[in-house]
Amino acid sequence: MTAPTGTALIALDWGTSNLRASRLGEGGQVLETRAAAGGVMAVPERRFEAALMALAGDWIEAHRCPLIASGMIGSRQGWREAPYAECPAGLAQVAAQLVRVELAAGATLHIVPGLSCIGPDGQDDVMRGEETQLWGAALLPGTCCVLPGTHAKWAWLGEGGAVRAFQTYLTGELYAVLTQHSILGRLMQPGQARPEAFAKGVELGLVEHANATHVIFAARTAGLMGRIEPEGLPDFLSGLLIGIEIGSATRHAAPASVVVLGDEALCARYETALDVAGIGHRRARDDATTRGQWLVAQAAGLVDGGGRLST
Amino acid sequence: MTAPTGTALIALDWGTSNLRASRLGEGGQVLETRAAAGGVMAVPERRFEAALMALAGDWIEAHRCPLIASGMIGSRQGWREAPYAECPAGLAQVAAQLVRVELAAGATLHIVPGLSCIGPDGQDDVMRGEETQLWGAALLPGTCCVLPGTHAKWAWLGEGGAVRAFQTYLTGELYAVLTQHSILGRLMQPGQARPEAFAKGVELGLVEHANATHVIFAARTAGLMGRIEPEGLPDFLSGLLIGIEIGSATRHAAPASVVVLGDEALCARYETALDVAGIGHRRARDDATTRGQWLVAQAAGLVDGGGRLST
Repeated sequence: MTAPTGTALIALDWGTSNLRASRLGEGGQVLETRAAAGGVMAVPERRFEAALMALAGDWIEAHRCPLIASGMIGSRQGWREAPYAECPAGLAQVAAQLVRVELAAGATLHIVPGLSCIGPDGQDDVMRGEETQLWGAALLPGTCCVLPGTHAKWAWLGEGGAVRAFQTYLTGELYAVLTQHSILGRLMQPGQARPEAFAKGVELGLVEHANATHVIFAARTAGLMGRIEPEGLPDFLSGLLIGIEIGSATRHAAPASVVVLGDEALCARYETALDVAGIGHRRARDDATTRGQWLVAQAAGLVDGGGRLST
Repeated sequence: MTAPTGTALIALDWGTSNLRASRLGEGGQVLETRAAAGGVMAVPERRFEAALMALAGDWIEAHRCPLIASGMIGSRQGWREAPYAECPAGLAQVAAQLVRVELAAGATLHIVPGLSCIGPDGQDDVMRGEETQLWGAALLPGTCCVLPGTHAKWAWLGEGGAVRAFQTYLTGELYAVLTQHSILGRLMQPGQARPEAFAKGVELGLVEHANATHVIFAARTAGLMGRIEPEGLPDFLSGLLIGIEIGSATRHAAPASVVVLGDEALCARYETALDVAGIGHRRARDDATTRGQWLVAQAAGLVDGGGRLST
């Protein structure tokens, strides 16, 4: 079988800060990728079409193919709100709920809805973009997957690859605001990575996850008492927060193994923490986002459903 | 017995933001109080003596009596560091560890050391100022006392009124940084107090205290889903954080009742939350700070130990 060369889909990973556009071939393979700081919060006056045309206008003119977008672009602050699909949700539900935006250039953009989920405590949770990555990662039923980030997600997969349930943890954002704006940042000094301080934080966070708003104060007292040097305090707090997250997310039933999906450096940090927790892990494939976008487009009939995904 | 009228002690409640000076009579009663925004972080170039003389120089000149200070003034960033006394610690230990500062005006200032405590998790915790309030509140052995604030403290009293153990919760500071600097503040609108939203937050925080860094995300999703109006979201987050604190602090053994000590509005908030948690409570007396300072001064022999404290 020869590799197809035509462009079948333009796939947009459109988040809060960045816009990444990929041109996918007829087998779903990535032919070319471009990125810009054109995220939902970075585009002035919601001029999303202008931002898209600036990055990929030439592709849209040249290839006359459908576009698909996942991420915060479907939020209320985005281009067009794509109402959440409720969990459990798989490719079929989401493909039936794509929100169409007709572009002046003549092409059609399809926005993937995010997912909502009601937790055991009766509270709503939401994601936008991660659902597409989860499908792209082709996870087996029963898999537990963590997606580190500003708002880290823990997702549990169900039958047929559907997302059964998920939980958001504010870990990344807490790290940022506590480091920059709270007393915990006062004693911190920048410096090289301190793996030992990180591991100490993880251990403490795991044990004390049920006492999180107390135990983070250790990022001050450990500095005050000279137990951790100022250059180690940022990694200690990072470890604490990731340890709290892992301890909380796995408190009812620790999975034997989790899949880690996302940014390389953050994934490595989580893998270290999972080692400390004694939980196995494997990394998801790098192309989960574009692969998921391709699968949604296939399920919606935007691209050839018979085409085999190149792996 | 006639009330004594001379000034026996000048007592300084000297925290991060404010300096409050009280003139105490020979029975320990408050004769006069003054306050200024002269806290440790508010005095330029550590000119603490100038700040003190500006507020109470006339008292110091006129009365030639000892001065006592409790709070952050004894921290490394303060006037003179007063090393922590280790828990369990009572009046006698602390009275033996007062740090003397000779003033140019001829009087002597005695700085009360804070307390340190090693938790069951092996981590250090610290307080400065609250120990003096706890003694002033004259709590029975076995009492559990909560002091709401930026860094809320839960303290457990032991034999002879000693502070047996305590834990700091970052509740107040988390509320401030999350409201001002995180995504949780984005949907919030200022408005009247919303007691129902507060109570909902408390209930959720109590149940989900072991999942704190996840459940605070509800302060976003509840707004996103229209379950709580934008004006109710600040009180919902406040309730969540206080509920998490109470749930965490009482998770091993819920006390039948706790004593609440501190600022009126904050104490009222905690009392409402304790009602939701089904934990009894009573308010500590208002003059716990000056009463504690008097008792420390008595124990150190700075004032007449035979004088009976007017109640």
